[in-house]
Amino acid sequence: MQEVKIYDTTLRDGTQAEDFNLSLSDKIRIALKLDEFGIHYIEGGWPGSNPKDRGFFEEIRNYQFKQAQIAAFGATHHPMKTPVNDANLKELLKAQTPVVTIFGKSWTVHVKDALHTTLERNLEIIRDSLAYLRPQAKTLFYDAEHFFDGFRADRDYALATLEKAVEGGAECLVLCDTNGGNLPGAIREIMAVVKERFPGMPLGIHAHNDADLAVANSLAAVEMGAVQVQGTFNGVGERCGNANLCSIIANLCLKMNVPCVPPEKLQKLRETSRFILELANVPPNRYQPYVGRSAFAHKGGVHISAVERNPRTYEHIDPSLVGNRRRFLVSDLSGRATIKRKAEEFGINLSSSDPVALEVLNEIKQMEHEGFQFEAAEASLELLINKAMGSSKRYFELIGFRVVDQKLSEDDEPVSEATIRVRVGGQVEHTAALGLGPVNALDNALRKALEKFYPELREMELSDYKVRVLPGRDGTASRVRVLIESHDPRGHWGTVGVSHDILEASWQALVDSVNYKMYKDEKGLNGES
Amino acid sequence: MQEVKIYDTTLRDGTQAEDFNLSLSDKIRIALKLDEFGIHYIEGGWPGSNPKDRGFFEEIRNYQFKQAQIAAFGATHHPMKTPVNDANLKELLKAQTPVVTIFGKSWTVHVKDALHTTLERNLEIIRDSLAYLRPQAKTLFYDAEHFFDGFRADRDYALATLEKAVEGGAECLVLCDTNGGNLPGAIREIMAVVKERFPGMPLGIHAHNDADLAVANSLAAVEMGAVQVQGTFNGVGERCGNANLCSIIANLCLKMNVPCVPPEKLQKLRETSRFILELANVPPNRYQPYVGRSAFAHKGGVHISAVERNPRTYEHIDPSLVGNRRRFLVSDLSGRATIKRKAEEFGINLSSSDPVALEVLNEIKQMEHEGFQFEAAEASLELLINKAMGSSKRYFELIGFRVVDQKLSEDDEPVSEATIRVRVGGQVEHTAALGLGPVNALDNALRKALEKFYPELREMELSDYKVRVLPGRDGTASRVRVLIESHDPRGHWGTVGVSHDILEASWQALVDSVNYKMYKDEKGLNGES
Repeated sequence: MQEVKIYDTTLRDGTQAEDFNLSLSDKIRIALKLDEFGIHYIEGGWPGSNPKDRGFFEEIRNYQFKQAQIAAFGATHHPMKTPVNDANLKELLKAQTPVVTIFGKSWTVHVKDALHTTLERNLEIIRDSLAYLRPQAKTLFYDAEHFFDGFRADRDYALATLEKAVEGGAECLVLCDTNGGNLPGAIREIMAVVKERFPGMPLGIHAHNDADLAVANSLAAVEMGAVQVQGTFNGVGERCGNANLCSIIANLCLKMNVPCVPPEKLQKLRETSRFILELANVPPNRYQPYVGRSAFAHKGGVHISAVERNPRTYEHIDPSLVGNRRRFLVSDLSGRATIKRKAEEFGINLSSSDPVALEVLNEIKQMEHEGFQFEAAEASLELLINKAMGSSKRYFELIGFRVVDQKLSEDDEPVSEATIRVRVGGQVEHTAALGLGPVNALDNALRKALEKFYPELREMELSDYKVRVLPGRDGTASRVRVLIESHDPRGHWGTVGVSHDILEASWQALVDSVNYKMYKDEKGLNGES
Repeated sequence: MQEVKIYDTTLRDGTQAEDFNLSLSDKIRIALKLDEFGIHYIEGGWPGSNPKDRGFFEEIRNYQFKQAQIAAFGATHHPMKTPVNDANLKELLKAQTPVVTIFGKSWTVHVKDALHTTLERNLEIIRDSLAYLRPQAKTLFYDAEHFFDGFRADRDYALATLEKAVEGGAECLVLCDTNGGNLPGAIREIMAVVKERFPGMPLGIHAHNDADLAVANSLAAVEMGAVQVQGTFNGVGERCGNANLCSIIANLCLKMNVPCVPPEKLQKLRETSRFILELANVPPNRYQPYVGRSAFAHKGGVHISAVERNPRTYEHIDPSLVGNRRRFLVSDLSGRATIKRKAEEFGINLSSSDPVALEVLNEIKQMEHEGFQFEAAEASLELLINKAMGSSKRYFELIGFRVVDQKLSEDDEPVSEATIRVRVGGQVEHTAALGLGPVNALDNALRKALEKFYPELREMELSDYKVRVLPGRDGTASRVRVLIESHDPRGHWGTVGVSHDILEASWQALVDSVNYKMYKDEKGLNGES
């Protein structure tokens, strides 16, 4: 089959989702990650609509991309303007992207009720907007908004809008199910008509998930000849979201044999999906097809023994193809070998029959049960294995801390103070510090107490601090998980803490972070855990 | 089109999901709710497999059902046994349900690697198991496990297993995509062959979501003549889950005009979906098609003004048909008109040319810049608009609080204590409370201080508490945003706070939550903000 190009709009349509927000620097980092994964087009935003998107296009020019082409998105010109004096079109060109994608109205209802113009004028607007952009855009795509609804309401008019887009110079007609309400049968029928009407013209699909069919609709369009699929990673987007590219890419590659992303990139599917959710600070959906934590998890005893004999019995694909892994929820037989492999990674020699491996495994299971997660906190895991092997060193001992947070009237900011007593070697250090909030006060006090003994701590900084309230519906008494990322001039490392008390959870992660700094310096490691 | 009967397996296949567990009493309550909603068949469990399922079938007999028929699920008899001495089949009959559903192996790989028997013996087992149950089962369904994979591996054998099921007396052949890896095209082709081979025989579909296509596959089967659809509410189930009945039922009724559930029941779709999640203590997926909180939420300014003129422009159905509602989100993308509309939603009369609207808008923009977000905290927004209009009431005044968190050795859990002074009317209340962590201590102290004056606070509970560290890379000094969701017997509402200090941020959200409770009770509102 013909190659399908993937057009990712996580950075534009994705951020229309409720509660999915990305900073400018998040957007840059995600674009680089998508490029690394092998995405063909990355829609960065709508340059005319807000300062953040404008900033993105200014900054993204400084980066070199391996394969991906950045696209800027915008609307056809305003009915009361001409292309030349339309601010939106001007902004689009100012973005200086290799790809420009412009959307226009296909549905008569929208022309009247959203654009407030005549059907005839809308046709001119489409042609003239594209024709104006054409000489300056290296690649020019046309998104036919609400195409399927438009076609069903007035087929001739919907086709006439595409005609104008072709006249204007569009290189791909992307048919959009903007309201997400169409069924695969309608997608197929309408695609067939469009294909016949515009032979040889590349077609694309942009589906929304309001009827829970966005993936199926996208695949149906590919079967009908679409060569571009638009969507978002993890299916984020307005209302119920866009078509989920994680599922689409995996289905195209593994089920339909459509050239799309090479196998070695596909193995990064899960990692890429997670990276984006981490930056947006959105908890992953454990049940997500292909990439979810439960996607290859086997619970029933019958399933487990069958999968052990032959994974095909209850797995539709080999999970490693998408960078995921099999999990047995009752008895984790792969566990001990994993610890051994992890220890090897850390340069620790541990045989999987070693009782220490079992001990560590049990401890990790207990900790995971309590809410710990080591995926982003391998420094904590490394310290844990070391401790179980009896080779860890105590750099200091806590005698006690007290954190006070006091607010003296409704309008005052509270004042946070921490006092701390630690023992280092034979010496006791008792000190205090203020902070911006209680966690910061505790952090400051700990560093102040230790820096005298370990001056190398001065070169260590916290680069990220994350808090997640763990599910359980206990309101303000819920357990929280704190993840801390630290760095020094030679590397960075992640640590974790869990408790009902956010200060205790932060304390655990801070202590691991400080201990890891000293440990790695002694071992001459560069960090990166 | 022919009526489609819905077969819900939330209570059996649904509970195979990781982290989805139901008690016996939950299962009973859900069965009654599903009956009320108009589900035709409710699979209660696998009586032979565990005591909870056995208990369910004993207890459920005491209830009267309006329409639904309870089904018991089980496997064909053990290869080394005969039907008469097979404990599993015996348990199935002991359940005394109007419907018995029995599953058998269709796929040669499974016969050999899971059942460990010969192909010939498996055919006997299927026929004999059904023939044994037939005289005692009022209604007898056959689930052909892995049918689609089996058909693709050995078409003749797969069809032969169905032949045996028919010989044994099956009233419906339910074809299962057990591993969830098939595409709609395969479903359609294979259904067509089965239909031709067994003319007049009722067919059903049971799809899993491993390729993100369970809903599409189920609908494809209905198009090919399936008259029974199996699935679960909200799509829970092993690995990536079962076919989501919420989406399937809505699509059948509203998109395909297939008789299935009457319109007045369909309006309970969202409520039924929520009820089940509440009992399982699983947070709802806000983006879930049809029933999610965001399913009809509009964020972009362009979308909002178009929907105002004509809802069809960005809504595929009228949300009230499934018991959902339209929402307009306040975000950096919106303007003064949104505030006006928001105020209207809250029952506050505000013209968009009113200087108050501008004032509120500026305040919101400033607050959003600082990290506030009102999408999930509409109660805070409502209080804000009220305050700007000068119509807010002060229920109490804070004189001061102090929170102390003290850890006395490395191995001790810290102790959290909060003291608080508030003024209510002319009276000063000074009190203290402990808590699981400092936020919980503060929460407890605030309630303790106020409950004396406002006893209605006792019926209010916190249902969710979320913390997000805002981007900015200031480590432990980062700003945090706290979101609190509260509820009382009549509704639920969300509030927000932002500060460098997590206690201050939590305080802001707690205060809004308490104020909103008192405000809405005075106004006679039900909440839902």
